[in-house]
Amino acid sequence: MVQSLNGRSNSARVLRRRLEILRFAAAAFRREGFERAAMRDIAQSAELTPGALYYYFRNKQEILYFCQDYSLDRMIEEGALIRRLKGPPDAQLRRLILAQMTCMLDELRGSAAHAEFSALPPRLLRKVVLKRDKYERMMRAIVSRGVRTRVFRKCDPKLVTLAMLGAINWTIKWFRPDGARGADEIAREFADYLVRGLKSGGVTRKSKVARR
Amino acid sequence: MVQSLNGRSNSARVLRRRLEILRFAAAAFRREGFERAAMRDIAQSAELTPGALYYYFRNKQEILYFCQDYSLDRMIEEGALIRRLKGPPDAQLRRLILAQMTCMLDELRGSAAHAEFSALPPRLLRKVVLKRDKYERMMRAIVSRGVRTRVFRKCDPKLVTLAMLGAINWTIKWFRPDGARGADEIAREFADYLVRGLKSGGVTRKSKVARR
Repeated sequence: MVQSLNGRSNSARVLRRRLEILRFAAAAFRREGFERAAMRDIAQSAELTPGALYYYFRNKQEILYFCQDYSLDRMIEEGALIRRLKGPPDAQLRRLILAQMTCMLDELRGSAAHAEFSALPPRLLRKVVLKRDKYERMMRAIVSRGVRTRVFRKCDPKLVTLAMLGAINWTIKWFRPDGARGADEIAREFADYLVRGLKSGGVTRKSKVARR
Repeated sequence: MVQSLNGRSNSARVLRRRLEILRFAAAAFRREGFERAAMRDIAQSAELTPGALYYYFRNKQEILYFCQDYSLDRMIEEGALIRRLKGPPDAQLRRLILAQMTCMLDELRGSAAHAEFSALPPRLLRKVVLKRDKYERMMRAIVSRGVRTRVFRKCDPKLVTLAMLGAINWTIKWFRPDGARGADEIAREFADYLVRGLKSGGVTRKSKVARR
């Protein structure tokens, strides 16, 4: 359950409304940059009076925190489900990448807010960083298990995980909901590419191929 | 040759000095964020009087522009050299990734300034975007040639190039010059991983393996 900042209830209706507003906010952040986008622009594009917007979010920081907290909760839930279902590490990793990208690109419409950590006040930043680190560890655990079970080649799981997360997070810099390629297509292409870079086999150095 | 913003000569000495200052600026941007870092902080950490700093850079935007313009020039030069030398696409791509990461992480010490496009005034932003697009096309051309010559598997070269650039550019979010892993080690691990994801062969779906 997503916690509200100021103790307001987060009933299903309020949560749905906050998510709707988030998409308009995302568009404003993308258009103006987070620093420059103003609450009144967000209210206007969401066709809300400023008063109504302030009922759901006190300020931009609260929108940002909600965006990050909500998406990280979703991603961590998916990571926990994938872990429980077991299955081979390459399939697990593929599913986790698809889930993260669907959440970021489709549900949050590529909201740049997802990565604007530095704009959060320190207390909220710490909470988000804890969740972000937890998610990163979940992804890294799949990579490490893949290396141990030789489904993946020998590599540095920490660095490879950072490379994957970088490729995925950077999409917020160029993804456009109305662009030529849909969120699904991008997510599949990325999952193919990012998982394949880890696979054992397909090595070009002859000695290694011979050793298989 | 890197062009100065305001027509001052960019002699070798001035260029060297500007690069030195850039590293201190990079540290300040990393510590404070670009918006919050002040010229006087940069001057202080570079042990310069504000007057001396203003001789080399009029303002933060000029530092940012210099950083982006200089690094893109270096990367484009390297891309042109790699193209002239010909060689197989996987080796070309590996070399380009290593060159880009060495420039970003080692020479510019992981300066976050490299990616803070939105803080530039529109006229300078356009110039940087043109160079950035040129570099992206160079990388994509190598991927496309690899796909044509079947060194690389069938893929969407545009999306895969964006994934690679994302993984590389995101390093500015976590790289620390004094961290556990050096710039060289990170660059090699990334190059291995990012090139391997493109290689034909090593496919797991049985039908595709059989078809080879």
